[in-house]
Parts: sequence; structure tokens; C-alpha cells
Amino acid sequence: MYKLHNIDGKAKRGELHTVHGVIQTPVFMNVGTAAAIKGAVSTEDLKQVKCQVELSNTYHLHVRPGDGVIRKLGGLHKFMVWDKPILTDSGGFQVFSLTSLRKIKEEGVYFSSHIDGKKIFMGPEESMQIQSNLASTIAMAFDECPPYPATREYMKDSVDRTTRWLVRCKDELNRLNGLDDTINKNQLLFGINQGGTYEDMRIEHAKVISELDLPGYAIGGLAVGESHHEMYRILEAVVPHLPQNKPTYLMGVGTPQNILEAVERGVDFFDCVYPTRNGRHGHVYTNHGKMNMLNAKFELDDRPIEEGCGCPACTTYSRAYIRHLLKAKEMLGMRLCVLHNLYFYNSMMEEIREAIENNRYSDYKAEKLERYNNGN
Amino acid sequence: MYKLHNIDGKAKRGELHTVHGVIQTPVFMNVGTAAAIKGAVSTEDLKQVKCQVELSNTYHLHVRPGDGVIRKLGGLHKFMVWDKPILTDSGGFQVFSLTSLRKIKEEGVYFSSHIDGKKIFMGPEESMQIQSNLASTIAMAFDECPPYPATREYMKDSVDRTTRWLVRCKDELNRLNGLDDTINKNQLLFGINQGGTYEDMRIEHAKVISELDLPGYAIGGLAVGESHHEMYRILEAVVPHLPQNKPTYLMGVGTPQNILEAVERGVDFFDCVYPTRNGRHGHVYTNHGKMNMLNAKFELDDRPIEEGCGCPACTTYSRAYIRHLLKAKEMLGMRLCVLHNLYFYNSMMEEIREAIENNRYSDYKAEKLERYNNGN
Repeated sequence: MYKLHNIDGKAKRGELHTVHGVIQTPVFMNVGTAAAIKGAVSTEDLKQVKCQVELSNTYHLHVRPGDGVIRKLGGLHKFMVWDKPILTDSGGFQVFSLTSLRKIKEEGVYFSSHIDGKKIFMGPEESMQIQSNLASTIAMAFDECPPYPATREYMKDSVDRTTRWLVRCKDELNRLNGLDDTINKNQLLFGINQGGTYEDMRIEHAKVISELDLPGYAIGGLAVGESHHEMYRILEAVVPHLPQNKPTYLMGVGTPQNILEAVERGVDFFDCVYPTRNGRHGHVYTNHGKMNMLNAKFELDDRPIEEGCGCPACTTYSRAYIRHLLKAKEMLGMRLCVLHNLYFYNSMMEEIREAIENNRYSDYKAEKLERYNNGN
Repeated sequence: MYKLHNIDGKAKRGELHTVHGVIQTPVFMNVGTAAAIKGAVSTEDLKQVKCQVELSNTYHLHVRPGDGVIRKLGGLHKFMVWDKPILTDSGGFQVFSLTSLRKIKEEGVYFSSHIDGKKIFMGPEESMQIQSNLASTIAMAFDECPPYPATREYMKDSVDRTTRWLVRCKDELNRLNGLDDTINKNQLLFGINQGGTYEDMRIEHAKVISELDLPGYAIGGLAVGESHHEMYRILEAVVPHLPQNKPTYLMGVGTPQNILEAVERGVDFFDCVYPTRNGRHGHVYTNHGKMNMLNAKFELDDRPIEEGCGCPACTTYSRAYIRHLLKAKEMLGMRLCVLHNLYFYNSMMEEIREAIENNRYSDYKAEKLERYNNGN
């Protein structure tokens, strides 16, 4: 199901076969929280920016429109009209970051909806049931996302519970995949490694969950406030203890630099809201660094955001026009910046894949960062 | 320059030749106030919804980004990347509806910008200069838009001034079109008929401005608060006194029914914010009447907004998905509704043209309204 094409240093060039097509890795998954990429981007647009995998949020779709509604409509692929792979997160991260009045128990989490305050319970079984209703390609295990920083004692309890929850997730998804009326009977489950910035706990947990022989493993609980240096240190410690012959997913990361560093440490799945969120604020990525398209210096600039870029914004519109749209609060300005940013990220992943194939990842990374950080 | 293909009753089927291509009439011009259609619609999208003419607002572009900026960037066509005809209004309507502290003098209007309060003067010459900088295909004359209702006395003074201003507009645009560095030396000027709901004043004014032999004539100052019945009465009175062998443009109108009635009375150019504004609120037009896409009854409805519709929304997405997007405040929901509405309007104009060609406009109109108003 997962094939490794090449390894360059620790960097992995692989592919994951799914019922919704093959994912070439390293891959950046494009975040469409509520079954749509923010910024008026349609799934038609997504194809044009080279998106391989769309990522939607289980918690958001559970509260609106409801996973039952999406199931009745044939699942998420049919609902949002996207026939390539979709990954759904477990809902855990949002339960811990968005909701109020949480109570964590062995059976799961009791909390109040951020939309209407409604009391909701979500545990491993519920998360799997919701994701099975959504019928995504890849379901993520339901875990606890501990706060940062957390004491060793808190972290130990939390990681142990996350391990017990993972076993329940696996059992429940197996059961659901075996039911006659399940939409996607081949739904894959990725486990999630936790342990905060405690290397020993990370490694111990990685070993335990690896034994469950799941189709993929993620590293969660990073990019939550710790320094980049700490994040890289944890990756160096834990990635060697996760199966190399399976996808390795660093959740919620990150900047172009973060991705380049994590690929070098053996990660090959990523997702992050940066390209979409920054795009909506007029902040765009280029090979020469980030630009704020609201800057007055672009007033008369008839060049594209980035010369030579093949995205729908750059092949047609000028910096001057995009700046005007953003100043005038025309939604088209946001859309064009989001499209450019997603194209930039997805294209960088293409370059990364090619560099690993040619055993020149280290050189590629150095050149890319030199240009990106120094604008030359 | 304007050719009449057929006349069916009073309904005109014509075409206007411009340097930016031929406009088939009756035509609905798609409103892109600040050089963009609201709702994240790109000029690429505009082609897909059969837009023939884009309309931008002179006042808005004058205050932001500034017509000088657009001129330096090669004019509005190059700025927004649209190679088909563009009509710019004169700025008059916005000066009278958006700004504060207005003083109307013989030379023009003194007012404060609605954005930063900056003092601005605009008279006939200034309006022509701005529109020449924008380099639109069709420039509109600078007129006074009198309030509704207005006394006969006020209206008489206002209409007389509008006539004097029209002469100045014509002279100034002739001068500008003759300058070496003018971007569009073939810019056309349409005059505007005023007179409120006073038939005699409307007719008298129509006769006077017709003698100026301009490339087209608009009827302004309607759809400003009077009843539909009054509007149709005025059209019946005044249209016969405007040149039949020139475009006849009813400004800012309107609903599908308004357009169908006005075409029957000899109008062949229209513009209105309804399809875009309503779309952004989730209100869509169909052949069976309007629908509010936020309605709970669409929760599980997997049909398109309108069966058989060829717009980018209906060929791909379901009512259930669009409703979800609108509920979740995802901009894509607005964009899809706007695209559908523009396609609906532009397609209706196609049907209108075909009906007039086949001398069955009256039957067509009756059938269309029967379906639209009674939902059958």
C-alpha cells in the first residue's frame, strides 16, 4: 500500500495507494476545514493548484452540517465534489482548542459545541463513527492533545490514555469497515504519536503504537508553542522509531522552512493552514521570501506575484491589481492570494520529491532556503 | 456602429460594434464596481457565465486605486484583464448617493469622499477625464441624479443643468479622444435622459439630447423609489422619443420581470447589482422563481440549484453543499450563488434575443413570467 521509491539521507520519497488514487510523497495536504478551502476556492480550483490530498476537520463537520447529513449525501467526496484522497483529522485537536467546559474521562471527552454550546461527547468510537460517515480516505486516531508545556506526570497519563484510545480506534474502524452499508470500507487509520517534548516518552510511545501495524503514523502535539529547535530535536529522536515503510505525518506543520527541515528528518506528510490563512490576509509566498501584497510599493507593479509562477493568479493578474483588490476588500484578492500560496506549497513538494529522487535533497534544501531567507 | 437586426413590437434586437468587440442586444451588463465582480468572481469566471459587458464605477475607481494609477497601468481592460467591452458610469450616481456635504454648482459638484472624507470636485470635464483614464469602451455622461420625489421646479432646473453638462461632456470627450496619449481614442459617450416621473419633461429632454447625435442614450433616475408601474409608464412615454437606431439603456434595472417589461418597451441595455448582491446573500434566481439557499429544506437536497442549468455551480455542486457553505460562512458559497445568478441573467438575455429574432417576444415573455412568478 505504501511504496518507498528512494531514501536520500533520511528523506523519504514514497507513494501511498488508496481507493481514491495514489499520493506521491512528500505531500502537503491542503486544508479545507468545513469541506471547503477558505477563500472561495472550489474543488475545480484545487485541481489547478496541484492539490493531491484535501484535509477536512471532523469536529467542524460533525457540528455543521453533521456527519449524518454528509453520510446521507454519499460521503465527503460526493458532498464537496472531490474524487482524490481526503484525510480527516480525529476531532481531538479542535475539541481541545475550540471548545469549552471539557471533561476528559477514560471513555472520551465531554465538551460544549463552539457554535451553539450544545453538550457533545466524543471518544475513540464516536470519532471513528463520524469519520466513517464522512468516508474520508484516511481517518486519524482520536488522541488527547496535551497543553504545552505539560508536566511529565500529566504527559505520562495522557500518552497512556492515548495508547488505550488508539487500540479502541483500531477495533472500531475495523468493525465499521466490515459493515455492509459503510461508504468507504477501505478507510485507512493513522495512529498519532504523542509525548510533548519528552524524548523518552515520544520514543516509548512510538514503539508501542508501531506494533499495532497501522497504515500510517503521525506525530502530533508539535507546533503547539515549543521552539522550532525543540520540534526538530523531537523529530530527530522519534522518527527513527516509527516504521520507515509507512507514511510519516507531521501534523499542522508548517512554514516552508519547517517542511524542508522535517522532510530531511524523514517526514513525508504535512498539513497547515498557513498558505490559506496568510493568503486571505494578502501575505504570499515566493521563492524569494514572503511578501505583503498590501504594501504600497506594489501600487504600480504590473508584474505577477512571482515571475514564472504557473498559478491561476500569476498567469493572469498583476501585483497592482491584487493589491487594489485587497485594499478594496474584494474577495477576489483573497482568492487569488490563496490560490498562489497553495500552488507555491504544492509546487515546493514537487521539487522536494524530485530532489530526493535524484539524491540531492540536501543541496536542494540549502539552495531553496538561501533564496527564500535572503531573497536572492 | 449600432445595427438593428429586428424589431418585434417595440422590442429591439441589435448589436453595437466597439473597439473591444460586438455587443449583442438586449444585453445585461455585469456589475464589477471596483474593477471586480463581488463574490471572488474572476474575469476568467466571467467568461464562463456568458458576460458580454462588464460595468465598473467611475467614482469608486477614482477614489481607489485612482484613475491615474489605472491609466499608468494601461487602462481598465489591462488592469482587470478583461478584453471585452467595459462600460463606466459617470460617477454622478455615487456622488449623489454615497457622499456627504455635497454642493451642486453650475461647474459641477463639490463633495467629500466616502472613504477618507477628502474634498473632491467633479464636473462634466472631470468625469470625462477620469473615464478617459480608465479607457472604458463606453463612458456615461455626468448628470445630476435628482432625489425622488422632486418638485417640478427642482426637476426643471436639474434637467436643464444636466443638458448643459451633457454638451460639456461631449466636447471634453471629443477633445480627449483626439489626444495622442489617450488609451482608448474610440471611447463612446452615452447621454442620459432625466426628468423623474414627469412625462412631459422626460420627453422634452429626450428630444433635446437626441439632437446631440451621441452613440447611445440611457434613461437615468428610474428605479430610485417610484413604483414599477410608474417606471413602465415613463418608459412607454420616453423611449419613442429616443433614437431607435441607437442603444437604449435603462440604468440600474432590475429584476427579471423589470427587464422583460422594459425590453418590450424598447430598452436593450441593462445593468443591476441584484444578481451579485442577492447571490452573496444566498438568494438565487431560477426559471421557477427565486430561492433562498439557506432554507432548511435544502439540507439533504443533492440536486443542483436548477436542473439543466449550465453554470459552474449547477454543473458541479448540490443545493445541500451550497447551503452548507453559506451556513458555515464559507466564501465559496457566495461565489457559487453569484456565478449562478449572473449565468441566469445572461442566459435570459440570450433567450430574449432569440425570441425577438423569431418575432415571438410577447409569447416568450408571457411564458417566462408565468413560470417565474408561479413556480411552474
